[in-house]
Amino acid sequence: MTVDIDRVSRELETLAGFSDAPAPAVTRVVYSETDRRARAWVRGLCEEAGLAVREDAIGNLFARWKGSEPGLPAVATGSHIDAIPHAGRYDGTVGVLGGLEAIRALMRAGRRPRRSIELVVFCAEEPTRFGIGCFGSRMLAGLLYGPELRDREGKTLRDWVGDYSGMRLPVGCYSAFVELHIEQGPLLERAGTPLGVVTAIAAPATWHLFIEGEGGHAGAVLMPDRRDAFCAAAEVALAVERAARSSGSMDTVGTIGVCDIFPGAVNSVPSRVRMEMDVRDIDGARRDRVLAQIEAACAEIATRRGVTIRKEEINADPPATCDAGVIAALERSAGAMPYQKMVSRAYHDSLFMARIAPTGMLFIPCRGGVSHRPDEYAAPEAIAAGVAALAGALAELAG
Amino acid sequence: MTVDIDRVSRELETLAGFSDAPAPAVTRVVYSETDRRARAWVRGLCEEAGLAVREDAIGNLFARWKGSEPGLPAVATGSHIDAIPHAGRYDGTVGVLGGLEAIRALMRAGRRPRRSIELVVFCAEEPTRFGIGCFGSRMLAGLLYGPELRDREGKTLRDWVGDYSGMRLPVGCYSAFVELHIEQGPLLERAGTPLGVVTAIAAPATWHLFIEGEGGHAGAVLMPDRRDAFCAAAEVALAVERAARSSGSMDTVGTIGVCDIFPGAVNSVPSRVRMEMDVRDIDGARRDRVLAQIEAACAEIATRRGVTIRKEEINADPPATCDAGVIAALERSAGAMPYQKMVSRAYHDSLFMARIAPTGMLFIPCRGGVSHRPDEYAAPEAIAAGVAALAGALAELAG
Repeated sequence: MTVDIDRVSRELETLAGFSDAPAPAVTRVVYSETDRRARAWVRGLCEEAGLAVREDAIGNLFARWKGSEPGLPAVATGSHIDAIPHAGRYDGTVGVLGGLEAIRALMRAGRRPRRSIELVVFCAEEPTRFGIGCFGSRMLAGLLYGPELRDREGKTLRDWVGDYSGMRLPVGCYSAFVELHIEQGPLLERAGTPLGVVTAIAAPATWHLFIEGEGGHAGAVLMPDRRDAFCAAAEVALAVERAARSSGSMDTVGTIGVCDIFPGAVNSVPSRVRMEMDVRDIDGARRDRVLAQIEAACAEIATRRGVTIRKEEINADPPATCDAGVIAALERSAGAMPYQKMVSRAYHDSLFMARIAPTGMLFIPCRGGVSHRPDEYAAPEAIAAGVAALAGALAELAG
Repeated sequence: MTVDIDRVSRELETLAGFSDAPAPAVTRVVYSETDRRARAWVRGLCEEAGLAVREDAIGNLFARWKGSEPGLPAVATGSHIDAIPHAGRYDGTVGVLGGLEAIRALMRAGRRPRRSIELVVFCAEEPTRFGIGCFGSRMLAGLLYGPELRDREGKTLRDWVGDYSGMRLPVGCYSAFVELHIEQGPLLERAGTPLGVVTAIAAPATWHLFIEGEGGHAGAVLMPDRRDAFCAAAEVALAVERAARSSGSMDTVGTIGVCDIFPGAVNSVPSRVRMEMDVRDIDGARRDRVLAQIEAACAEIATRRGVTIRKEEINADPPATCDAGVIAALERSAGAMPYQKMVSRAYHDSLFMARIAPTGMLFIPCRGGVSHRPDEYAAPEAIAAGVAALAGALAELAG
């Protein structure tokens, strides 16, 4: 079985061309015209490979290579093609185009698996539009509920796609799910190890924070009279950093990635601030202690500064443990290639697929551990190694 | 001489209708279609009053009531009609429509002054478009130089208005300039005093701050490896607040009113931040010591966090002292009405007119000292008192 890495590289390059930012940056937000065109192009590649493709109501794609016993639960692989603003070329796409190439390589090698093998292209792993990550796989796993998702322009998911009921997948519909992905961290590169077999995926939590103080003229409102929402926000941001740094583990991370100031004029005291916060840990209980610490800091800041701080919890997911059988298949498939077992600090559609199927992940190194940036890079040889190991594991899992 | 306050109130209401924000908020950014329509409407009011109107290259309006000795330098009054996003109805507009009513009241009373009296409507007091306040009066006073002004969309002043050379006013072209304005602070209201005679105008400084760190995936980049531009920005914001609070005087204020994060995604470590800072004091030397303290804090934060912080000084103006003759005329004109002498913490076109003409300012109370907000409010009686005192002073100064 051989991997056509030149073809995968060309396909990655073409896919990077579907972008709303100038190269090398990639911006591809779910449901944008660019995202729709990219998805149609990937669908075409799947059909060209002879796979039977269906798309669900919200835009998840399923491309199936029928096995000799099509009644059995299929083995699935896949990832996402959406990209945050000014991102790179490899996040998610390696798992989609690499997953497709794994299937094509098995076909070219004349394999005929018992179970069907299905490539899944999740419609949105990134939280850019609706503020919540992985809403494609969350909905497949039946884990999205609560208030209607709404984007920054106020459009709901229903506005974008119409009726989307009945798209949940039943537990047991896949006998295994394996996701190939760049590490998005520096460990494999530092160790010089070509493959990482993931044992657990960190637990993410997202809050939106709404700070309300009092505005006024930046020249005329005296300092002791101020209830400046941005100064309060600054303290919150530093409290998030401090809580993440002092958790007792390197595995805790905390970030404020979005901060909108109202009214946003140089000569106006900020009256309102809206921030988006992301906190993760591979230990769910420790993550929750950090969240509690941040909440306490917000309460103290609000009281001391005379502002209100309201939090909206967008998600607070438990971590996922990868399936022992899938891990073993990946380890066997690595064969002579060195690999290391590791945790995933980024979260992925696998976090949610793990709720409905035995799940594993395969990491390949990326340069400098850099991701979500235009200079994100994975070498062709690294991708080829990952695709080969994925193909072997899919073949074993499909029987 | 009587002031037609009902007419002024109606005109203020009509002017507030020229807005790009829903009422009661007013948004009127210089050169927007809304601003142009509002300016044309004010111009029409001036022509209706029988004033000779001219408009200069950048949009400053001059409406002259010819005196009996038109060769003498005129007496001028005026203010601005542009409004920051989500502002109120009275900032600037009281000085324009109140100034016009002062002239109309003198006309109705049959006065015939020796000197011409000219209403000036400065094209932009607010820094919203170009990041620098009072560019209309700055240019009239010949104080704007250095790099071409550029707005957030990258359009230059030249792109907006074409050639604007030769619009500088000569020193001595006005024998006096008086600006009527709401206080934008709480002192008159608290004291129950209807008029404030301004003796000095605080010295403003504006910096743009550019912070550059390193981006990356919010899940995967470990805390000790981060160079988070927003955490650095948060420390800078708190340093600005601290420096302003610890200057030793209540007259020092410092504000970060604008903060843009790049890339601005919940799951991305901020790589770049752009902030706009405003620091003021009635004591120029003390203001500069506060600026030096902020600069030192930026250097320390940059070194400790491994980020770069670059500052661009947009303006750092000296304070203005009001003219003793104009102050005396305002005090006499107040007559039986109580007034207090005070400093202006907000800055105004008067700060720059003071460089080319003997200048004074007259304040009236506004509710709660609130300004730059939709709930900004000045009572009709307060406006009427201000217009009456202004008219008296203009009559005396024009002879």
